Amino acid sequence: MNRTFFRNTLAGLRKRLARLAPDTLWVVRPENRRYLSGFRASDVQLDESAGYLLITEKDALLVTDSRYTTEAEAQVVDTEVVTIHKDFVESLPELLKRLGTQCLAFEPGFLTWGLHRRVHRALKAMDPAVRLQPLRGVVEKLREIKAPEEIEAMERSSDLMGAILDEVVPRMTPGRTEKAIAWEIEGLAREGGAEGMAFDPIVASGPNGALPHAVPSERALQPGEPVVVDVGVRVEGYCCDMTRTVFPGNAEPSERFRTVYRTVRRAQLAALEAVRPGVETTHPDRIARDIIREAGFGDYFGHSLGHGVGLAAHERPRLAPRKPTRLEAGMVVTVEPGIYLPEEGGVRLEEMVVVEKSGPRILTRTDHFLDL
Amino acid sequence: MNRTFFRNTLAGLRKRLARLAPDTLWVVRPENRRYLSGFRASDVQLDESAGYLLITEKDALLVTDSRYTTEAEAQVVDTEVVTIHKDFVESLPELLKRLGTQCLAFEPGFLTWGLHRRVHRALKAMDPAVRLQPLRGVVEKLREIKAPEEIEAMERSSDLMGAILDEVVPRMTPGRTEKAIAWEIEGLAREGGAEGMAFDPIVASGPNGALPHAVPSERALQPGEPVVVDVGVRVEGYCCDMTRTVFPGNAEPSERFRTVYRTVRRAQLAALEAVRPGVETTHPDRIARDIIREAGFGDYFGHSLGHGVGLAAHERPRLAPRKPTRLEAGMVVTVEPGIYLPEEGGVRLEEMVVVEKSGPRILTRTDHFLDL
Repeated sequence: MNRTFFRNTLAGLRKRLARLAPDTLWVVRPENRRYLSGFRASDVQLDESAGYLLITEKDALLVTDSRYTTEAEAQVVDTEVVTIHKDFVESLPELLKRLGTQCLAFEPGFLTWGLHRRVHRALKAMDPAVRLQPLRGVVEKLREIKAPEEIEAMERSSDLMGAILDEVVPRMTPGRTEKAIAWEIEGLAREGGAEGMAFDPIVASGPNGALPHAVPSERALQPGEPVVVDVGVRVEGYCCDMTRTVFPGNAEPSERFRTVYRTVRRAQLAALEAVRPGVETTHPDRIARDIIREAGFGDYFGHSLGHGVGLAAHERPRLAPRKPTRLEAGMVVTVEPGIYLPEEGGVRLEEMVVVEKSGPRILTRTDHFLDL
Repeated sequence: MNRTFFRNTLAGLRKRLARLAPDTLWVVRPENRRYLSGFRASDVQLDESAGYLLITEKDALLVTDSRYTTEAEAQVVDTEVVTIHKDFVESLPELLKRLGTQCLAFEPGFLTWGLHRRVHRALKAMDPAVRLQPLRGVVEKLREIKAPEEIEAMERSSDLMGAILDEVVPRMTPGRTEKAIAWEIEGLAREGGAEGMAFDPIVASGPNGALPHAVPSERALQPGEPVVVDVGVRVEGYCCDMTRTVFPGNAEPSERFRTVYRTVRRAQLAALEAVRPGVETTHPDRIARDIIREAGFGDYFGHSLGHGVGLAAHERPRLAPRKPTRLEAGMVVTVEPGIYLPEEGGVRLEEMVVVEKSGPRILTRTDHFLDL
């Protein structure tokens, strides 16, 4: 992302903030931090942050410690790096005085109860006291609509993932294990210049494919059984997410799995057609679900149709049976119906698409679909 | 870990719980969940849990959704897997009624403010209302003292990490990039049967070594400059954490870095001697810090001496200049002094040791120290 991108994200946030009670936003969530400032670090673990943002109408501070100062200064845009040498909560009152904060907004889904309590006490002790207020999803809302540079990054991550599958799928021969395939994918991702995987790869063969969230095992692929490959890489922070179901060897799938596959693919294509600006997010889900139910597999599609993708592998909007919102141009979502037959196997097919006026534009362009 | 191990962890928790006001503990933190139940899943992302534990004197429930049921049932010990089909907060009152909960404890450092608020409201609406109470570090405290099986797992992760360094260090020749070395280490970890890395590998050459937290870059190793290699794998969930500083090629380090290296190594060996049961955690830190300061590098050792390791890469106790606690037999800690000269480079040396009555037992047995 170039400097203009981060200027725009900051400006977008400030425009929203201007309409709300809090004058300062405290950003804890790493993806939001990166989106607004350009700081690319990830947190060491849940209870060790690489830094917090404090953003007002005029200022943007990245509050971090000496481990991150150099990296942060090289990366941030229009943001001042403040290196603190004591605890964050102890440092906060002084920083807020400097910013002129009267009401500090925090992210309720990411700030822990314990840190909130400590900050709450520190702010109450200030003179005048600073108010602390939850503000849910304000940055996530901005992140829903992707800028052209973000979509370009997601094209690059999708193209890399596609090139990897072009190499790996022909080598998914009977006898190789799920783990070996998953590991080969990770290796090619790193060699291809990915920042990392978007999530742990799923390679789920035979009965394991009936678990939508299976972890790759030592199980060897069997000829003709379905193998669900759900994978994504991260390029410049942006995730790709795609799923193909492969039948190893040149063995024919059973008649049952031919039917399952055809049904899933039909549901996917019909749902994709409905992914357009102005459409409610429940609508494509319903289309896919109806097709799967009418084919007699209604009990075997337990998850929702899709989700937004971006800096996070799972983000807004969700394409689910409930809680409708409207699709807008510039959103990037997955369309991933599946049928999971307990102890037999599963078929899931997933595309990642940009919502455009003219219809959905598929980012996961590599094929590997079966023509049954 | 065998079944007895998890029986013991649960029993240990119940013993503590019996002395406290809450009758039920709600476990959110993934490492605590694994430690008590054997459930090995990791959370997809910060706002997507693979499941929560609810533990009383008599019962232990793992509350999860259908994506995880099969995996969970195969893994848990003395814990009932409860698959919920609606939202966790909506399901909770019924579960707590069944458990007879009057006071529910939560982990304040890991539960988000937003989820706490929703649960708080749901419990207040119950008749009779269930109280909600923060309980900090109760499972973390148990995890401080490792069982023999845990130490064995950490021996295996250390031995694997050592074998990987035995392969990689001789191949750290001038011209290869930091990223290439990091990637080779990750590849060997996976091939060697690791569950994954304990944290992102650090391979920091020349000036990059002055950043304790550097991310591997495209920078090529130069002859004779120090390269900080801070790496660890995870075996059966348990982390290894070790650091060596390597001078690529057969080039001699400069006189300055020979002095730095010798100082760090002296500080490490002296601090290690002090890692014994009953010693305050500030004591080894002070020994190392004094040696480094007396050598004239006092301004260039900015972090604390070490930290506990286990299911988390960073856990209790900390070996730091402040907040003393006492070392106990069975703790596993790192001893990792460093000297970081801005724009020149850094030297860090890290061992991971078990605190034993007879003294520290080094788990990171592979050498790769220089004899200067």
